[in-house]
Amino acid sequence: MPLTDEQRRLLEKPNYGVLATVRPDGTPQLTTVWVDAEDGYALVNTAEGRFKEKYIRRDPRVSLYVRDEDDPYKWLSITGRAELVSEGAEDHIDKLAKKYTGRDSYPWRTEGERRIIVRISPDRVIAYQV
Amino acid sequence: MPLTDEQRRLLEKPNYGVLATVRPDGTPQLTTVWVDAEDGYALVNTAEGRFKEKYIRRDPRVSLYVRDEDDPYKWLSITGRAELVSEGAEDHIDKLAKKYTGRDSYPWRTEGERRIIVRISPDRVIAYQV
Repeated sequence: MPLTDEQRRLLEKPNYGVLATVRPDGTPQLTTVWVDAEDGYALVNTAEGRFKEKYIRRDPRVSLYVRDEDDPYKWLSITGRAELVSEGAEDHIDKLAKKYTGRDSYPWRTEGERRIIVRISPDRVIAYQV
Repeated sequence: MPLTDEQRRLLEKPNYGVLATVRPDGTPQLTTVWVDAEDGYALVNTAEGRFKEKYIRRDPRVSLYVRDEDDPYKWLSITGRAELVSEGAEDHIDKLAKKYTGRDSYPWRTEGERRIIVRISPDRVIAYQV
């Protein structure tokens, strides 16, 4: 299910997202994420070893919520399958750092950290005023 | 698992929340919600017949995310069991309307709509800078 141009723009703006992954017990885990859109996918970036990664490897179905920072009643929620992509993930976190913090590279890297792109293919979109 | 005072205050401020319910297929449904705290519970308000209500009746496990409107890196996510409470739900939506819109009563009532409080007992809290 393709995103509309306006929905894509909501992801391209520096709006914060909430990623829901499914825990082994079936409950949703919600965390704040930086978001991005590319080639029809919604993108998030995480690191190896995080709960997000573990839960996605176990069950790739996720939902991503993004709200317009300037209008709390303008939001969308995408449900789809996530793929975990290592290639390009270090550059991608720098791109997100630039978008959200203005810095040229991600300032909170930890030693040995390996980044991963969470690439979400939208199956279902709930959108409100967008 | 009780909320700390600071976590409770995050819910009491007019911050917007995201409620995750579990769809019959196991994927998380995410929607914007007004939030409130009372007697150790996190409260949300919905109406009969909404997907939120149907999903909660089927599986009462929900997660509620709330972020400080003034600081995107200050947020919490509560996972717990939701009870659906009709008693006091009409007054409660007016209280939330006052908090979020400044109006004395909820301005978007529809004919025949019956409100329900979603009362969440926190089992598990993820908190970031709060």
